[in-house]
Amino acid sequence: MTSSANISDSVASSLEPTLDRQFWFIDGSDRYALGVRHTGQVLFDRQSPYQRVGIYETLDYGKMLTVDNLIMCTEKDEAAYHEMIIHPPMLAHGQVKDVLIIGGGDGGSVREVVRYPEVDRITMVEIDAVVVEASRQFLPTLSHQLDHPKLNLIIDDGIAFMANAPDASFDLIVIDSSDPVGPAEGLFTAEFYQQVYRCLRSGGVMTVQSESPWFNRSALAELHQCLRGVFGAEHTHCYLTILPTYPTGIWAFNFCSKQGPHPYHHLDRDRALAFTQSQGLSYYNPDIHQGAFQLPTFVQQLLQS
Amino acid sequence: MTSSANISDSVASSLEPTLDRQFWFIDGSDRYALGVRHTGQVLFDRQSPYQRVGIYETLDYGKMLTVDNLIMCTEKDEAAYHEMIIHPPMLAHGQVKDVLIIGGGDGGSVREVVRYPEVDRITMVEIDAVVVEASRQFLPTLSHQLDHPKLNLIIDDGIAFMANAPDASFDLIVIDSSDPVGPAEGLFTAEFYQQVYRCLRSGGVMTVQSESPWFNRSALAELHQCLRGVFGAEHTHCYLTILPTYPTGIWAFNFCSKQGPHPYHHLDRDRALAFTQSQGLSYYNPDIHQGAFQLPTFVQQLLQS
Repeated sequence: MTSSANISDSVASSLEPTLDRQFWFIDGSDRYALGVRHTGQVLFDRQSPYQRVGIYETLDYGKMLTVDNLIMCTEKDEAAYHEMIIHPPMLAHGQVKDVLIIGGGDGGSVREVVRYPEVDRITMVEIDAVVVEASRQFLPTLSHQLDHPKLNLIIDDGIAFMANAPDASFDLIVIDSSDPVGPAEGLFTAEFYQQVYRCLRSGGVMTVQSESPWFNRSALAELHQCLRGVFGAEHTHCYLTILPTYPTGIWAFNFCSKQGPHPYHHLDRDRALAFTQSQGLSYYNPDIHQGAFQLPTFVQQLLQS
Repeated sequence: MTSSANISDSVASSLEPTLDRQFWFIDGSDRYALGVRHTGQVLFDRQSPYQRVGIYETLDYGKMLTVDNLIMCTEKDEAAYHEMIIHPPMLAHGQVKDVLIIGGGDGGSVREVVRYPEVDRITMVEIDAVVVEASRQFLPTLSHQLDHPKLNLIIDDGIAFMANAPDASFDLIVIDSSDPVGPAEGLFTAEFYQQVYRCLRSGGVMTVQSESPWFNRSALAELHQCLRGVFGAEHTHCYLTILPTYPTGIWAFNFCSKQGPHPYHHLDRDRALAFTQSQGLSYYNPDIHQGAFQLPTFVQQLLQS
């Protein structure tokens, strides 16, 4: 913007004429940063035993949930994450009865799962009750199904829960975690995914948020390699979603199965389209379900490295 | 990051321990900002008759070309733009002989076109010689084909050129412009695309950079509607690419034809794959060619609005 200014001078000087003072939440690294402007009014700010949990009112993206220095989700674009971590596995499998969600304290993943009447039971294991509390209080569009009668919400360590869960007890397991630092670090290990594999029914499916192919290249590459080791290469598939409030705007998931369905070859497109339309989804549809698994060459190469 | 700080305080406080002074180039709006850190050494900085042109050395994305307050491209992620504005139309058409590029002064689009031996002539009309000069001097990986014998490089106003070009003279026209402010504003009008249509051969194809479905929603929606009016809805197709150094990380193109090929239904996948591999492309491949046209629901709705 100017020829040699730090981030503050650049933003401030370009906006001086119209604004006296600005409040920005910054996510990213010391080399690439995403700034989301908020009103300055912090709706929620509490240090839990695990992390600092915040809710901000942004100018463009509605209310925003943060954990430590990271944006977890905003009201305006969270559908791109929650619809895409839930509907590809649900509709590829087609007969999910028992769902386990690890993490997901904001409630967005539960909200998407309860759209399916054929689901009998949802177990959600969130380590941090403060995330659930913040979301219940300030993010009703995400959390409004957290009292659903099919849901068993457990505040506990997902890693310990997984280690003690019975064999072959779930059709779908969703790892809806934060980044591989702090409490979520153990969710990025082979030991954990061996437990996930054990607890899936035959033909069962798992999805996991897998970081950014631009921003956290090594985290994505290592997780994908780890999952291939556990589930087998032919049952491990990466796919992408578009999310402007995560750094670099693109985010990856992995779809794995226990000798289960291919993620999109046998998709019942008619059912998926009818579902999309009847539910009024804002991101998922059968086209993007299939398109999301088509990867740019540099991502294909990253995953093979 | 902190509960109420402006963008400068937030970034500075988190990085204080390791760095004395930082240099950031900021792109975005007064509500959503992308920061790319550079070394502070500005390699090129000149006010042309049209705009201020800069070259920076970034920490993560190689050298970066800027125009006024906007990032035009970086060495590290520009392939996601240039491969995707050129190869889908080239390979969907299959027999392009005459190419016209409006804009594209950095040379990236020319570099991609000259990969096809069957192309006879490339005409490029760039309004700003300073962009070409900066790229020649500092971005050789983009500009190294600007002296190719098939290329006729014209420094002129693309709108005037288009108005005077002969009927039915090009198989492919590429609108590789900057954003719809300043000199590129006239590239976002129906009058201009009527001229493009007139100058395409029957069956010819056009691609145009079309802004972000998150960041410049109305610009994308209005351009798509304009193009449907000129080319017909069945010959106007939006597709997406992933580009972390453009705000929101996602960028749109439109593919239009003069009663020409569907953009991906009849793609010769074997040819496209052989081409991808022989050329060592980093973004394009036949999977992403077809996948890029599969749009999230909110983008489908935006385009129908």
